[in-house]
Amino acid sequence: MKEVVLGLLGLGNIGGGVWDLIREFGGEVSKRTGVKLVVKKALVLDKKIHRGKEVPDEVLTTEKNDILEDPEIDIVCEFLGGEQPAASMMLRALENGKSVVTANKMALSLHFDELREMAKKTGAGLYYEASVGGAIPIINAIQTPLIANHIEQMMGIVNGTTNYILTRMAAEGAEYEIVLKDAQRLGLAEPNPTADVEGYDAAYKLSILGSLAFHSRVLVENVYREGITKVNSEDIAFGREMGYVLKLLAIGKDNGDSIEARVHPAFLPADHPLARVDGSLNAVYLYGHSFKDMMLEGRGAGDAPTASAIVGDIVQAAQNAVHPMPVMRKDPLPVADDWYSKYFIRMKAKDAPGVLAEVAGLLAKEEISVSAMTQKDAGPDGKATLIIITHMAPEKAVQRVVKALNPEICKVENVIRVEG
Amino acid sequence: MKEVVLGLLGLGNIGGGVWDLIREFGGEVSKRTGVKLVVKKALVLDKKIHRGKEVPDEVLTTEKNDILEDPEIDIVCEFLGGEQPAASMMLRALENGKSVVTANKMALSLHFDELREMAKKTGAGLYYEASVGGAIPIINAIQTPLIANHIEQMMGIVNGTTNYILTRMAAEGAEYEIVLKDAQRLGLAEPNPTADVEGYDAAYKLSILGSLAFHSRVLVENVYREGITKVNSEDIAFGREMGYVLKLLAIGKDNGDSIEARVHPAFLPADHPLARVDGSLNAVYLYGHSFKDMMLEGRGAGDAPTASAIVGDIVQAAQNAVHPMPVMRKDPLPVADDWYSKYFIRMKAKDAPGVLAEVAGLLAKEEISVSAMTQKDAGPDGKATLIIITHMAPEKAVQRVVKALNPEICKVENVIRVEG
Repeated sequence: MKEVVLGLLGLGNIGGGVWDLIREFGGEVSKRTGVKLVVKKALVLDKKIHRGKEVPDEVLTTEKNDILEDPEIDIVCEFLGGEQPAASMMLRALENGKSVVTANKMALSLHFDELREMAKKTGAGLYYEASVGGAIPIINAIQTPLIANHIEQMMGIVNGTTNYILTRMAAEGAEYEIVLKDAQRLGLAEPNPTADVEGYDAAYKLSILGSLAFHSRVLVENVYREGITKVNSEDIAFGREMGYVLKLLAIGKDNGDSIEARVHPAFLPADHPLARVDGSLNAVYLYGHSFKDMMLEGRGAGDAPTASAIVGDIVQAAQNAVHPMPVMRKDPLPVADDWYSKYFIRMKAKDAPGVLAEVAGLLAKEEISVSAMTQKDAGPDGKATLIIITHMAPEKAVQRVVKALNPEICKVENVIRVEG
Repeated sequence: MKEVVLGLLGLGNIGGGVWDLIREFGGEVSKRTGVKLVVKKALVLDKKIHRGKEVPDEVLTTEKNDILEDPEIDIVCEFLGGEQPAASMMLRALENGKSVVTANKMALSLHFDELREMAKKTGAGLYYEASVGGAIPIINAIQTPLIANHIEQMMGIVNGTTNYILTRMAAEGAEYEIVLKDAQRLGLAEPNPTADVEGYDAAYKLSILGSLAFHSRVLVENVYREGITKVNSEDIAFGREMGYVLKLLAIGKDNGDSIEARVHPAFLPADHPLARVDGSLNAVYLYGHSFKDMMLEGRGAGDAPTASAIVGDIVQAAQNAVHPMPVMRKDPLPVADDWYSKYFIRMKAKDAPGVLAEVAGLLAKEEISVSAMTQKDAGPDGKATLIIITHMAPEKAVQRVVKALNPEICKVENVIRVEG
């Protein structure tokens, strides 16, 4: 039996979940894998908070070097979250030859190159299955069983909070602000929800997944990012009438000479596999030249699912003689700032002759053709709702049309990309 | 660069697909993994058939020992299909210390213990991702990233041919025999379709998946097996009216003291993730105590998706110092011959007083309660269609009710389990 000594950086929800899983199921994991997991130290801010709970007192420490500098510790598991001090601690652990297991998409995305280079230098392993998609083994899949593929595109629902909000908005016809408040009350959204609802969390995750899938570094600052705060129940309802479901998607495409990396709300046809991934579920749809289409779906958050991924990583870090190390192009492909999509454009138009002709004329000038159009009778404000869905068109051309429309005559209320 | 020398047993559809993938994408795989894949020999029945195609003449051989006994060959890939001589050849390769990669569910299921024991003895690897679910990395997931889980149940659509037939029957209201013939014409069903339509293929796959997930050997002869030949369009239509979709499911459950392993047609609620897995797609839904619910979906067959899984396995066989080796209980859990399910019972009943009372009485006697009931007016034969959906009930009790009904008065046309 191979004994592997662990140090945990953090013992909050995730760290506590890992502690519990190892305590309750570690014996079975040993039987299955021949690896005995021993937690030697856990870094906490205040020992008093944890005293008297299941974690023995001698395991608790407030001194990071009790973990980072202890030669007996083989694997460091990082659960601090945030960029710093998490990134520096992981770097130090790797420098000391310790493998690192983390769920921290932010620190990983921002310091991916440094961390990988240090791991390569010292031969330590760097594992981060839990950083994207929680328990879903998407990172393992891309790096190992699906390695013999040119992955052409991926579309993911990788943020449970926004998916929960959009699912409830659709089911109840409720507005964003109301559902958000309720999600906060239920603990499904943070008191400060910005990281989730503005798409930052999804952008970090896409930066990691895209880098791995396309073997070309996708920096988070190059990911186009648009959150769900502008979405309203009217868009969701009109979309549904036309056969679409609204999701916050993380989209990555390898176009050969450039990469698309964008996070934004998007309509999907109701029969798309991702369209029925509801509530706090996560899912990633992939297309590879050899495996063709594939979708992996599961719990993207929660203590137990996250712990499942982390303990899976720990076992691999302990067993693998050669740690998986993604190879990146030396000259990364540029991340495109323009791309093709279909567009749902909702407008409030003055109920007067010539308005439709103006819109149609602007679209024609940009060579954008229309796939579907709906007009709703004018309300008491004398304005009709006009919805156009385009065929595939360049993002920038559509933005030019939107800009060119005179808001006095035809006001664009929302533009939502249509994917899938 | 580590050079790995391969011998291919068979060069038909799958073998040819692997040859193509290595030829076209092997260079990229080497860059990503540091493993250079070299095919030294490919066993064929008749060299003439392959002459002049892409495979060089010196690679072709009709002598198995050119592969099995060549000390230069590191990994043997088996694409012969069927039980023998595939199983003996794999055993010999493992005995000679060569890792084996196979897509052969039949040989694997029937000789799982021998093959694993030989691999353990010589330290060779045994890889079989392509044997279940084609390109879907389900075996890798269970064995590696999801290892820290008590997997409580799995439900899989693991046979593309039957899923294609059922999907078309549902979409077109067509009968089984007609769709089967069309599937045969299109090459989507074999000229002799028994292995698929009678559920043998799914049973082999469930035997493998169940053994891995439950860490207890599930022999194929203990898998309950019922094919799709008795399904008709009327059942599918009535089921749909009641909110169900019909699928051929491979179901495994770990009940603690026994295992359920059964392959049969089953109704799923239309909103179940598996319900919309249509056509030749495969998918496996899993529930683990830690990861909770998860579904992996993708191409279960086809040359390219199968090759994706096989080359993924080859790379792992080449890279891993310690090959994954599932640990099985010494005393396997018994496979249950009774289980709980809900049941859809379709009957043709004489349009006379007392018939419903008789059915209800027999159900009550077995303590089976009814969840839904529909009666359709009698047709020209004077018989009414009566459909009952039960609450959860033991299989054997339901079978006793079916047996006890007097077919003169109430003839049971079909019994379909309702799962999910």
